[in-house]
Amino acid sequence: MNKYIKTDPWSIIEDRFHPGRVRAAESLFSIGNGAMGQRGNFEETYTGESLRGSYIGGVYYPDKTRVGWWKNGYPEYFAKVLNSAFWIGIGVKINGVEIDLHKLTVVSFHRELDMKRGLLLRSFTVEVPGPGRVEISSTRFVSMERTELGAIRYSVTPLDSEVEAEICSYIDADVRNEDANYNEKFWEFVGNTPRSVTMRTHKTGFGVCWAMENVMECAIFTDVTEGELVRESTKVTIGKGETRTLYKYAGICSTLNHREKDLEQAATKVAADARSAGFDSLLAEQEKAWASKWAGCDIVIQGDDEAQQGIRYCIFMLLQTYTGKDSRLNIGPKGFTGEKYGGSTYWDTEAYCIPFYLSTEGQDVARQLLIYRYNHLDEAIDNARKLGFKDGAALYPMVTMNGEECHNEWEITFEEIHRNGSIAFAIYNYIRYTGEREYLAQYGLEVLIGIARFWAQRANFSEEKQKFVILGVTGPNEYENNVNNNWYTNYIACWCMDYALESAHWVKENYPNDWERIRSKRSFDITAEGDVWRQITGNMHLPEDKELGIFLQQDGYMDKEQVLVKDLDTSNRPLNQKWSWDRILRSCFIKQADVLQGIYYFQDKFPKDVIERNFRFYEQRTVHESSLSPCVHSVLAARIGDIDKAYEMYLRASRLDLDDYNRENEEGCHITSMAGSWLSIVEGFGGMRADGGMLSFSPRLPRQWDGYSFKVIYRGRIVHVNVTKSGTDVSLESGEPLAVNVDGKQRTIN
Amino acid sequence: MNKYIKTDPWSIIEDRFHPGRVRAAESLFSIGNGAMGQRGNFEETYTGESLRGSYIGGVYYPDKTRVGWWKNGYPEYFAKVLNSAFWIGIGVKINGVEIDLHKLTVVSFHRELDMKRGLLLRSFTVEVPGPGRVEISSTRFVSMERTELGAIRYSVTPLDSEVEAEICSYIDADVRNEDANYNEKFWEFVGNTPRSVTMRTHKTGFGVCWAMENVMECAIFTDVTEGELVRESTKVTIGKGETRTLYKYAGICSTLNHREKDLEQAATKVAADARSAGFDSLLAEQEKAWASKWAGCDIVIQGDDEAQQGIRYCIFMLLQTYTGKDSRLNIGPKGFTGEKYGGSTYWDTEAYCIPFYLSTEGQDVARQLLIYRYNHLDEAIDNARKLGFKDGAALYPMVTMNGEECHNEWEITFEEIHRNGSIAFAIYNYIRYTGEREYLAQYGLEVLIGIARFWAQRANFSEEKQKFVILGVTGPNEYENNVNNNWYTNYIACWCMDYALESAHWVKENYPNDWERIRSKRSFDITAEGDVWRQITGNMHLPEDKELGIFLQQDGYMDKEQVLVKDLDTSNRPLNQKWSWDRILRSCFIKQADVLQGIYYFQDKFPKDVIERNFRFYEQRTVHESSLSPCVHSVLAARIGDIDKAYEMYLRASRLDLDDYNRENEEGCHITSMAGSWLSIVEGFGGMRADGGMLSFSPRLPRQWDGYSFKVIYRGRIVHVNVTKSGTDVSLESGEPLAVNVDGKQRTIN
Repeated sequence: MNKYIKTDPWSIIEDRFHPGRVRAAESLFSIGNGAMGQRGNFEETYTGESLRGSYIGGVYYPDKTRVGWWKNGYPEYFAKVLNSAFWIGIGVKINGVEIDLHKLTVVSFHRELDMKRGLLLRSFTVEVPGPGRVEISSTRFVSMERTELGAIRYSVTPLDSEVEAEICSYIDADVRNEDANYNEKFWEFVGNTPRSVTMRTHKTGFGVCWAMENVMECAIFTDVTEGELVRESTKVTIGKGETRTLYKYAGICSTLNHREKDLEQAATKVAADARSAGFDSLLAEQEKAWASKWAGCDIVIQGDDEAQQGIRYCIFMLLQTYTGKDSRLNIGPKGFTGEKYGGSTYWDTEAYCIPFYLSTEGQDVARQLLIYRYNHLDEAIDNARKLGFKDGAALYPMVTMNGEECHNEWEITFEEIHRNGSIAFAIYNYIRYTGEREYLAQYGLEVLIGIARFWAQRANFSEEKQKFVILGVTGPNEYENNVNNNWYTNYIACWCMDYALESAHWVKENYPNDWERIRSKRSFDITAEGDVWRQITGNMHLPEDKELGIFLQQDGYMDKEQVLVKDLDTSNRPLNQKWSWDRILRSCFIKQADVLQGIYYFQDKFPKDVIERNFRFYEQRTVHESSLSPCVHSVLAARIGDIDKAYEMYLRASRLDLDDYNRENEEGCHITSMAGSWLSIVEGFGGMRADGGMLSFSPRLPRQWDGYSFKVIYRGRIVHVNVTKSGTDVSLESGEPLAVNVDGKQRTIN
Repeated sequence: MNKYIKTDPWSIIEDRFHPGRVRAAESLFSIGNGAMGQRGNFEETYTGESLRGSYIGGVYYPDKTRVGWWKNGYPEYFAKVLNSAFWIGIGVKINGVEIDLHKLTVVSFHRELDMKRGLLLRSFTVEVPGPGRVEISSTRFVSMERTELGAIRYSVTPLDSEVEAEICSYIDADVRNEDANYNEKFWEFVGNTPRSVTMRTHKTGFGVCWAMENVMECAIFTDVTEGELVRESTKVTIGKGETRTLYKYAGICSTLNHREKDLEQAATKVAADARSAGFDSLLAEQEKAWASKWAGCDIVIQGDDEAQQGIRYCIFMLLQTYTGKDSRLNIGPKGFTGEKYGGSTYWDTEAYCIPFYLSTEGQDVARQLLIYRYNHLDEAIDNARKLGFKDGAALYPMVTMNGEECHNEWEITFEEIHRNGSIAFAIYNYIRYTGEREYLAQYGLEVLIGIARFWAQRANFSEEKQKFVILGVTGPNEYENNVNNNWYTNYIACWCMDYALESAHWVKENYPNDWERIRSKRSFDITAEGDVWRQITGNMHLPEDKELGIFLQQDGYMDKEQVLVKDLDTSNRPLNQKWSWDRILRSCFIKQADVLQGIYYFQDKFPKDVIERNFRFYEQRTVHESSLSPCVHSVLAARIGDIDKAYEMYLRASRLDLDDYNRENEEGCHITSMAGSWLSIVEGFGGMRADGGMLSFSPRLPRQWDGYSFKVIYRGRIVHVNVTKSGTDVSLESGEPLAVNVDGKQRTIN
């Protein structure tokens, strides 16, 4: 843990220069607009440890799989969102000395991520040998309104004497991914102009053009472009105490949205239009866009500024990572903050992010995430076919960019099949929240049929048990591999088949035309297939320990040595760094919610005492070595009324990156797990549920807080929930009157 | 399968040129002398598909691990025996045209591996545009007597006209491993002389010098050495029908046996001494050495020439791969025939090769293989320590060169721990066969203690079962990973602890000085540790199906869909190419003997009906997709009197490489599994056992054969067993009288 970020309700602030934390801070101070993102790199030269990172959503490269021992069925490549041109580049020389915080003495330093307005602000003073102190300040953003625009205001002020400054603005497209499997360069040069460069990705052929406009009063720029490096440079004299400001506008256009031949013109236009609009006007647009985002989803915590800052950071990062404008995009575990995990899509999206976006950005945004999977259904069927399944069975990939599987660990790729369950559950969850059941007829049912077919083929009948079993799986707890009858997997498999069948009947009855289309397109025989599904779901082996009154994570779990986390010497932690893999596997320790993930999803199906017994049993054995783990425990702890435990779990997640708990920030932030922090407050403390077609709350207040309030978007309204020591107030900020259930009592809010 | 080798009792013969099979044939026609080996490459230029391969036992390189997803505990490198300088090189130009079988018309071609004498013979005629047909013949061997010497006789005869021939002899040390993980070159150049080159391996720093002497009557050689390429060249006129012969002697010396500064001198001396001795004299030495090898271990099969050729090939390859002269060496799965598996040591050595060498090369040779593991005990303890074990517990590596683990698949490296059992069993097996129980006091007991300690720590007590269990293992059947309570592993674990304790008591009683040394060196507490071991072995969970009367491969095995191999459509085979890994894992199909491996080892512990029931059950589910599988089934089938099944299994193994069953010869031959073919005959058909201190036989004759005979070395004698349709004759070829048991009757042979 490393508490060095200054506490502030709306900003993330570094108030001095931490040379050892530059790379980690670059992750924290990342900005994005759903379409692209930029790490918090310095504009000017920095020769210390740094990871320059600029990412364009959907522009990826299929990097050849690197594996020690090939297993039949592995994908040929791992799709990676590419590190792309460094468009923020500004070089400053003062009397011939390059400004470089790694080399000069830093007198003062302030960096701030202004979450309210979506801006990255920075100012610092360095001592330049000779001319003395020089102050530099910058304001940077990627525009929410103009998704192809990045803008920078960069000011230089010599404090001690007049100086000769050489200032250049550049785009450097000679970029490599740090995580390239075979050190390949993924980009090829297409062409340049004095103020633009166009590149194309190898293999995938995505074209991108970066164009810039640089403005500085009374300065004349000289073009010094060379291949992949596009530069403009100017020399100015700046008097002591005088400030010269460079405005840089970068247009970044890709073939996702333009024809390749139009790229340069498009990018140039974005930059030119921005120049015409002017920086202040763009800034106003940005402030307005962010104000509108915050309006429907802010969370206010009273009496705990750190928690306040933590949850706003989570919301801010999620909102700038995904905006739902493009159904080809999704949410990578690191968002736009780093290269790790390749910017690809995991089941995190369905398990954690969809509930967040449903309540914060609304139905249309969440729906885009469902459509993303719908659009990949044929690839999922193909993926299953490669693994020996047939007749339209679909297995969604563990990791994907375009629907094809990218991951290459057999115990995950082939066996962590519960992901299919979350993809089906997300459809159910979406409909439950929005009431838009017709989504089934339009898109959902096809996906559900593919998934149900997979489960039906994946289960087999055990003569020994006289039950259906699902062998050789990895559950959400990845500290077990290749186990038999993972309770969560078996349970959600049955649920998927039941829900698919129920949905099929509903569509058949209510949308006969869609039904006919789907039935014929997917060769679906509701009677015959439905019979098989019912037979399986009616006789599935769901391991349990009757004596303990708990569901068993998998067959044989109780053969393990039963040690509790509290009795584990801390020198063993984290297990994944201290223990060899086999030791982790045969221990009873759990990486992240597994049985509890199922209980979380299906809270309405289990009595409270069952939830409590399972929670107590598994919580004691869970090491939470996944950022995705504590939130589920937090929600369930709140559910059984253990608010202290819920709070403890909440704390682990909400400031994970801000305080760099795991000292891995330099690889990027844990974007998808930030949604878990939001869940902990809204579904946990707030007790928000959407069962049975009505929004309900049963708020509890952690004793560490004076109060909290949150807003959620629900069926066209903004609902405001304010929890204080004296009680809960639920009100409507906008929209039609709504019936809600608060602490078990139904009422209508206006 | 590809039957293209001509059947012959003592030779492997290709009688025409197969351009598509050159690389595969290079593996088949490999020669070796225990210290080094050379693939059957052509001496002259060949521009077609080929893998030039020359290997020096013990000269390896730690190639940086390549892995997709790192697991804590993985080794940093994989040690590989290196492809080294191409010392056989001879270039021939006839009237300026290079002899290259890939480019010229081949009129006739004959290649023969003379197994009786240990020679590679080749002759061919090519059509050279212009001068017409030219005949070339070569004789090559690596000397069994002079282990640092390779020799070649190479003759050129123009058949149609007088020609100008340019003949050069070279050593090319610019060699790379085809299987390098990161395309690195493993060698660095040290220096050269006109007729020698010295290289050094990166990291490991092994030095090797290759020196040559070239002799051709009335020819003057010009040195044209350049860096890593050492060459001598001559031009001669050869009359029509006249033959010119080049004799090439190569001395190959490494720092395994010489100081680095002496290398050049040593290698030059080997070559010069050979030149002085002359080719015919060296050839005579070679013939004598091989005659002496064959004297104690030949197998003769009457009425089946293919089987005869097959088993002689197996014996020949094993004898030339390992000679027991150097306890630093061992037997790589591909021997000196290819790069795959890195020439490292696997449990194949203990499971299959030690019984072979015990009976064919004798006690001293087999003992070296035990010493090899004894010398690695501290590394095995260190290996276990890295995985969290303590107090001197030893886990021998899955794959090793110098005692350190090299493998990097968690399910194998960390979990295929039964290998420890085979290493203990080999000690028992050695003592049972040789009677040299004092080996325990000198070396064996320390190894047994380390192994027993490992098992004691690896087992845990299941409260649920009230039994000890061993969780998370991979058995010999690698088509199951991370299973609980693999019967074979649990059984051999108990056996190891029992045998270690029994051995400790024996050493304590009989060799008090050694006992004191071992007790103190290994901090061994026979009372306390022995109690723990007894407690575990007395209450171990050994899964079985009482109804079927069989041992269960692992917990949950009967939950699998029970399909028999015979009912599997052949389009599914081999499973490891046609099925994804998860599908293989959850199927009931078995790669190689697992429960049956245990029954094979401990045949004396199980009644025949138990052996038969288990054999019938598992045989029907075994796909034998390991070359090591059929032999164990063959021996057990013979044991239960099913000679037809035994013969079927024997056939699968014995000509695996000769007929290229799996079309993978080009990667090298299956050297270690060749020992299995020998086991099938001697322990299977011959029914040889060494239980209870007496050699016994219960020979059966497959109906396809008229008869067979084999020789084994046993306690200083050569025992000859001759089996015909009319009965078995067991006789002594040399040594003191011996009591043997034949078909249950004891007698003494003279």
